[in-house]
Amino acid sequence: MSYSFDLSLIVAVAVAVLSFLFAAWLFSWVKKRPSENARIAEVGVLIRDGAHTFLRKEYVMLAKFAAVVAVFILLFLPHVIWADGFANALTNVQMAVAYLCGTIFSAVAGVIGIRVATVANIKTAEAARSGIKPSFLAGFRGGAVMGMAVVGSTLLGVALIMFVFGDPTALLGFSFGASSLALFAKAGGGIFTKTADLSADLVGKVELGIPEDDPRNPAVIADNVGDNVGDVAGMGADLFDSNVASMSAALVLAVSLDNQHTASGSPLVFGVFSTMVMCYAAAGLLASLAGVFMARMGKKGPTHALNSSTYVTTGIFIALTALVTWLFEGFSWRIWGASVVGLSVGVVIGIATDYFTDDSKKPVQNAAKASESGSALTILSGVSYGFLSVLPALVGIGVSSLVAYKLVIGIPGTGGNIEYGMFGIAMAAVGMLSIVGMIISNDAYGPIVDNARGLAEMGGLGDEVLEITDKLDSAGNTVKAVTKGFAIGAAGLTVIALLGAFLSEVNEAIRGIMETGGAAAERLISKGLDGGIHSFDIMNPTVFFGMLVGAAIPAVFSAMLILGVDKNAQRMIGEIRRQFKEIAGLKEGKEGVSPEYGKCIEIATVGALRELIPAGLVAILITLAVGFIGGVEAIGGFLCGNIVAGLLLALFMSNAGGLWDNSKKYIESGKHGGKGSDAHKAAVTGDTVGDPFKDTAGPSINTQITVVSLIASLSATLFLTLSVF
Amino acid sequence: MSYSFDLSLIVAVAVAVLSFLFAAWLFSWVKKRPSENARIAEVGVLIRDGAHTFLRKEYVMLAKFAAVVAVFILLFLPHVIWADGFANALTNVQMAVAYLCGTIFSAVAGVIGIRVATVANIKTAEAARSGIKPSFLAGFRGGAVMGMAVVGSTLLGVALIMFVFGDPTALLGFSFGASSLALFAKAGGGIFTKTADLSADLVGKVELGIPEDDPRNPAVIADNVGDNVGDVAGMGADLFDSNVASMSAALVLAVSLDNQHTASGSPLVFGVFSTMVMCYAAAGLLASLAGVFMARMGKKGPTHALNSSTYVTTGIFIALTALVTWLFEGFSWRIWGASVVGLSVGVVIGIATDYFTDDSKKPVQNAAKASESGSALTILSGVSYGFLSVLPALVGIGVSSLVAYKLVIGIPGTGGNIEYGMFGIAMAAVGMLSIVGMIISNDAYGPIVDNARGLAEMGGLGDEVLEITDKLDSAGNTVKAVTKGFAIGAAGLTVIALLGAFLSEVNEAIRGIMETGGAAAERLISKGLDGGIHSFDIMNPTVFFGMLVGAAIPAVFSAMLILGVDKNAQRMIGEIRRQFKEIAGLKEGKEGVSPEYGKCIEIATVGALRELIPAGLVAILITLAVGFIGGVEAIGGFLCGNIVAGLLLALFMSNAGGLWDNSKKYIESGKHGGKGSDAHKAAVTGDTVGDPFKDTAGPSINTQITVVSLIASLSATLFLTLSVF
Repeated sequence: MSYSFDLSLIVAVAVAVLSFLFAAWLFSWVKKRPSENARIAEVGVLIRDGAHTFLRKEYVMLAKFAAVVAVFILLFLPHVIWADGFANALTNVQMAVAYLCGTIFSAVAGVIGIRVATVANIKTAEAARSGIKPSFLAGFRGGAVMGMAVVGSTLLGVALIMFVFGDPTALLGFSFGASSLALFAKAGGGIFTKTADLSADLVGKVELGIPEDDPRNPAVIADNVGDNVGDVAGMGADLFDSNVASMSAALVLAVSLDNQHTASGSPLVFGVFSTMVMCYAAAGLLASLAGVFMARMGKKGPTHALNSSTYVTTGIFIALTALVTWLFEGFSWRIWGASVVGLSVGVVIGIATDYFTDDSKKPVQNAAKASESGSALTILSGVSYGFLSVLPALVGIGVSSLVAYKLVIGIPGTGGNIEYGMFGIAMAAVGMLSIVGMIISNDAYGPIVDNARGLAEMGGLGDEVLEITDKLDSAGNTVKAVTKGFAIGAAGLTVIALLGAFLSEVNEAIRGIMETGGAAAERLISKGLDGGIHSFDIMNPTVFFGMLVGAAIPAVFSAMLILGVDKNAQRMIGEIRRQFKEIAGLKEGKEGVSPEYGKCIEIATVGALRELIPAGLVAILITLAVGFIGGVEAIGGFLCGNIVAGLLLALFMSNAGGLWDNSKKYIESGKHGGKGSDAHKAAVTGDTVGDPFKDTAGPSINTQITVVSLIASLSATLFLTLSVF
Repeated sequence: MSYSFDLSLIVAVAVAVLSFLFAAWLFSWVKKRPSENARIAEVGVLIRDGAHTFLRKEYVMLAKFAAVVAVFILLFLPHVIWADGFANALTNVQMAVAYLCGTIFSAVAGVIGIRVATVANIKTAEAARSGIKPSFLAGFRGGAVMGMAVVGSTLLGVALIMFVFGDPTALLGFSFGASSLALFAKAGGGIFTKTADLSADLVGKVELGIPEDDPRNPAVIADNVGDNVGDVAGMGADLFDSNVASMSAALVLAVSLDNQHTASGSPLVFGVFSTMVMCYAAAGLLASLAGVFMARMGKKGPTHALNSSTYVTTGIFIALTALVTWLFEGFSWRIWGASVVGLSVGVVIGIATDYFTDDSKKPVQNAAKASESGSALTILSGVSYGFLSVLPALVGIGVSSLVAYKLVIGIPGTGGNIEYGMFGIAMAAVGMLSIVGMIISNDAYGPIVDNARGLAEMGGLGDEVLEITDKLDSAGNTVKAVTKGFAIGAAGLTVIALLGAFLSEVNEAIRGIMETGGAAAERLISKGLDGGIHSFDIMNPTVFFGMLVGAAIPAVFSAMLILGVDKNAQRMIGEIRRQFKEIAGLKEGKEGVSPEYGKCIEIATVGALRELIPAGLVAILITLAVGFIGGVEAIGGFLCGNIVAGLLLALFMSNAGGLWDNSKKYIESGKHGGKGSDAHKAAVTGDTVGDPFKDTAGPSINTQITVVSLIASLSATLFLTLSVF
C-alpha cells in the first residue's frame, strides 16, 4: 500500500474550510448578542477605531518592509538569481511568492482577530448583566473566532503551498513570511500595549490614586486598544508563526525522508511521513474545533471551564491521531508516541508555569509578602522565582526532544539517519501545537474580558456586573500565564526541529553546489564540506563563536523592546500629566469634561512603529553577519545559542511578569493591607516592571528565534559560497 | 634543545616566594601608618571581630563540607577505589590530598586578605586627614597584600602539586578544592554583605532618611563587616579559583601535548608547552608586582592611578612574555599571540563595562532620567542596558577564543589536533589572568576605602576628610565594575579551556578503561566510544538535552542566592525596626545610646551560612544527575549550556547592578533633584535590586561554572562506566 500525499492535502483544505465556516458561525453568534448601553457603544467605537488606526499604520509600514524583503529574496535566496545564467531563477520567484503569502495570511488572521475582539468586548460587558455564564460564553466564543481563523489559515496556507509548488523549501519561505510579520506584529503590538498600560497605571493608580479603567484617565482607551493590538493580533500572529514553523520543519524533514526511502532500501512506504504530518495537523484542528464547540461554564467557574476544554481537546487529539496511526499500520506508533510526548510536555510546562504564577501557591504569596518591605524586594523575589521557573520547562523540553528523537530513530529501517530523529522532534512540536486552536481561543479570551471589564467600568454598569467581569478577567490572567508557557515550549520544540531543517537545507545546498561544480564546488572541497555536514561540534571554535553571539541576541532584542516601551511610556506619561494639569475639571470628574484620548493613542502608535523596526532588524542583520563571517558552522552554533538563551530569557520574563501581576492582584484581594497599602504600591511597581517582560519582550523572543532560524535556512547556499572563513 | 619543566617549577616557586615577601613588606608598611582616633579604633575593632566571627563560623562549616567531599573523592574519584582490587587507589588518595590543599590555600588567602583589610581601613581613614595621596596609598597597598597573596598562592600551589604528584589531573583536584571553597566563600560572603547593605539602606536611608554609615543604624557595622567578608575574602577566593583553573586547564592540555609529541613525529620539543605555561604565569606575577610597586596617585585622581597601573602591568607582561617567547625560539610566537589576544579582549570587555556603568555615559544618565518617572522605569532601564551589555563581551570572548584557537592550531606539526587549539584558548585565559594580581589589588582597594569612609563618618573626622574618602570610594566603584567584567571574561575563557580539559580527561579515561578491559570496556565498545570522543555534536539529542539543563543551572543558582539575601534581609529589617522602636533615644541620636550592632551581625552570619550550602549543592547534584543519566555526551552539552547561559547572566547582573549603583550616585551628585528627590528614591530602589545582582549572584556564577566543569572532569570515568544511557 502507498500513501497519497495529495489526498491528505485535500483533506487538510477541507478541514481548513470547515474551521473557517465554524469561525464565521461563532462570529455571527457573538454579533447577535444584545447590546443597548449608549456609553459602552461609544467607548467601544473609540477602542475599535484606535485599534484599526494602529493596524492600518502598522500594516502599511510592514507592507513596505515585506516588499523590500521579497525583492531581496527574489534576488538572493536561496540562490543569487543571476548565478549560472538564471538557472535557478524560478526557485527564487517561488520563494518570494511564498514569502508574501505568509505575510498576507498572517495579516489577515490578525485583522479577523481584531474585528471580532472589538465586537466581543462590548457583547461580553453587556452579557454580564444577565449573569456570568452568558458573559463567559460571549468572551470565549469571540476568542475562538481568532483561534479557528489561525489554525484554518495555517492548514490552508501550508496545503496550498505544497499543492502549488510541491517543494517544502517554499514552505520555509511561507513560514519566514509568517514569522517576519509576527516579529513586528508582536513587537509593535507589545510596545503599544505596554506603553499605554504602564503609563495609565503609573500616573493613574500610583500618582493620583484613581481606579483602573477610570474614564478620566487619558490613557484608558489606549490601554484597551493595546489589549487588542498586542494580545489579540500580536499573539495570534505569534502562534500562527509557531504553528506554520512546526509544520514546515516537519514537512521539510518528512519529504526529505520520503525521498530517501527508496535509496536506503528501507521497508517504509513512500509518502508516509509527509502524509502523516498533514493528517496529524488536520486531526489537531478537528480536536480544537470540537473542544471549542463543547466549552461551557459550569459550577466550577471560568478557569475550570477554560482548562477542562483544553483537556477535552487534548483527549480528542490523542484519540484521533491514534486512529490515524492505526490506519497507517504498526510502525508509526512510534511517531504517534513522539507527538503524544510533545503534547504531554506542554501540559507539564503548563503545570509548572501555573505553580509559579498562581496566587494560591508559594511563589506569588512570598512575593506579596516581600512587598511589605518595599518594591526592591518585590523585584528581587520575582526575578528569583522567574529564574527558578526555567528549570522544569527546559528539562521538559530537553527530555521530550530526547525521547521523541530516540522513538523515531528506533523505527526499523531508518539506519540511524539523524533526520529520522529530528523528524521525531518535529512531530513532538506538531503534537504540542496540535491543540493550538484551543490555546488561542483561551488566550484571546483574556484581552476580550479585560476590555469588557473596562467597558463595564466606563459604562457605569454597577458593582455587581464589575464583580462578574473581574472574575472572568482573573480567569483570563491565570490561563494566560499557562498558555504563554505552552507557546514558549512549543516554540522550543519547533526551533529544535528547525535546526534539523537547517542541517537538511545545508546538505541540500551542498549537493546542489557540487552538482553545478565550478569555483563554489572547489571551495567546498577545500574546506572538506563536499560530503555534506553531519554535525555541529561544540569543540569547533567556529561553532562556539557562533553560539556565544547567538546567545546574546535574545538579550539585545529584549532590551531594545523594553527600552522602546520605556522611552515611549515616558512620552505618554508627560502627556497624561499635561492633560490633568491643563484640562480644567478633569481630575475632579466634572460632568461633560473628557480627556483627549486620541493624543495618547497617537503617541503609542507612533512610538511603537518607530521602535519596532530596529529591534527586528538587529536580529536579522547579526544573523547574516555571523553567516557571512563564519559560514554554516558558525550559524549552526549561532542557532543553538539563540535557542538556548532565548528559551531561558523568554521563560524567565514571562513567568516573572505573570507572578508580579498575580501577586499584585493577591494583595488587592485584601492581603498584606490590601489596596492602597505600602505593600500594594510595591506590588504595583513589580507589576509595572513585569508588564513589558511578559507582554512585550518575553513572548516576542519565540518569534525572534523562529525568524533567525528560517533566515539561516534560506541563506544556506549564500553562506556556503560567500562566507569569509 | 629541550626544556626543563622542573627548572620552570623552581622559578615559579621562587617568584611566588618573592610575592609573599613583597606582600609582607606591604603589610608592615600599612601597619606602620599612624592611627590615633579612639572612636575609629573602637569601631575598627567591632568590624574586625565581626569579620573574624563570620569567617571562623564559615570555615568551620566549610571544613566539614570539605572533609565530606574529600572522603567522597577518596572513594569514587577518578575511579571507584575498590575497582580492580584497589589498583588505582593511589590516584584517589592523591586527588583527595590535592583537593584538600586547594581548599586550604584558598582559605589562607582569604584570611590574609581580611586581616590586612581590617587594618588598612582604619589607616586609610586616618591618613585622609593628611590628604588624599597618603590615604590612597594606604588603601591601595592594603588591597595589594591580598593581590600578592592570591597570585603567590596560585603559583606556589600549582608548582608544588606538579612537583609532588607530577600529574596534571591532580591539579584538577587542587583546582576543584579552590573552586568549591570559592563557591561557598563567594556565596556566603555575598549573602552576608548584601543582607546587611540592603537592610541598612532600606530602613536607614529610605524609611528614616538618615545618612549612609550613620552610627545610629544597627546594621552599620554589619554592613562594613560585609564589605570585608564579601568583597575582600569572597572576591579573593573567586579570583584565586579562576587563576588556578586557568593554569590547570592550560597544564592539563600542555602535558597531554608534550606527551603526544613524540608519537606524532612533530618537530616540537618535549616539555615546551608545560614549561611555557609556568613561565607565563611567573611573568604575570612579576608584572603585577612591578605594577603595584610603582602605583602612586598623581594629579589626575585615584581612578586614573588605578587604571594606569593596570596598563603598566599589562605592558610589562607583554614585554616579559615576549622575552620568554624569544628564549623559546620562533614557533611559539603564536602562543604568545594567543595570550596577548586574551589580554586584549580583557581590555575590550573592561571598556564595554565602563560604557554601561560610567556616569558620564548615556546608559547611566538615561537610567537616572527614567527614575524621575518612578522606580519601575529605573528597573526597566537597568535591565535593558544590562541585557545590551552582554553583546560586546560575548562577541569578544567568542572572537578571542576563535583567534587563539586558530593561532595555535596553525603551528607547524600540530597535525590539526584540536587539543592544540584548545591549548591556545587556555593560553588566552592565562594571558587574561596574568595581570590578576593587579586586578585583585584594585578590587580589594574598593571595600577598604568604602570601610574607611564609614569609619571617617562614625569617627566624626569632619566634612573635609569625608570628601576625600568619598572621592576614593567613588574611584573604587568605577574600577570595581571594570574588574568585575574582567573577572567574568577571564572565567569565560577559562571555562572554555576547561571544556577542552574535560574532553582530554574523557579520552584519558576511555584509554584507561580499554586497557583494563572487562565489562566496562565492552560497554564502551557497544556504545561506539572505544575509540575516544572527538566532538560534542549539537544535533545529538543527548548533547542537546544536556545543554538545555546546563543552561538552567546558573539561573537556578542565582535565584537561590538572591532568595537567600531576600529572606535574610527581611529578618534583619525586622530587627532594625525593632531596635529603633524599642531603644529609647536611638533615633534621636541621644548621647551614650548605641544600637545593638552584634544582633545584626548575628542575623547576617546565621542566615548566610544557612542559605549558602543548598545553592552550591544543587549545582553539583544536578551535574552528577545529568552525567549518570546521559553520560559524557550529555555532560559535554551540559557544560556548554552552562557556560553560555552562565556568562550571559553573570554579565547581565554585574553590569545592571553597576549601572544602578552609579545612576543613584549620579543623582546624589545633584542631578534630577538630587538627594531626597523622588528620582533619588527610585534610584535607591534600583541600587537595592542591583546589590545582590552585582555582589552576590553575578560574580558567583563564574565559580559555579568552574566547579561544575571540574567535577565533570573528575567524574569522567564514573560517567563512562555507570551512566544509564
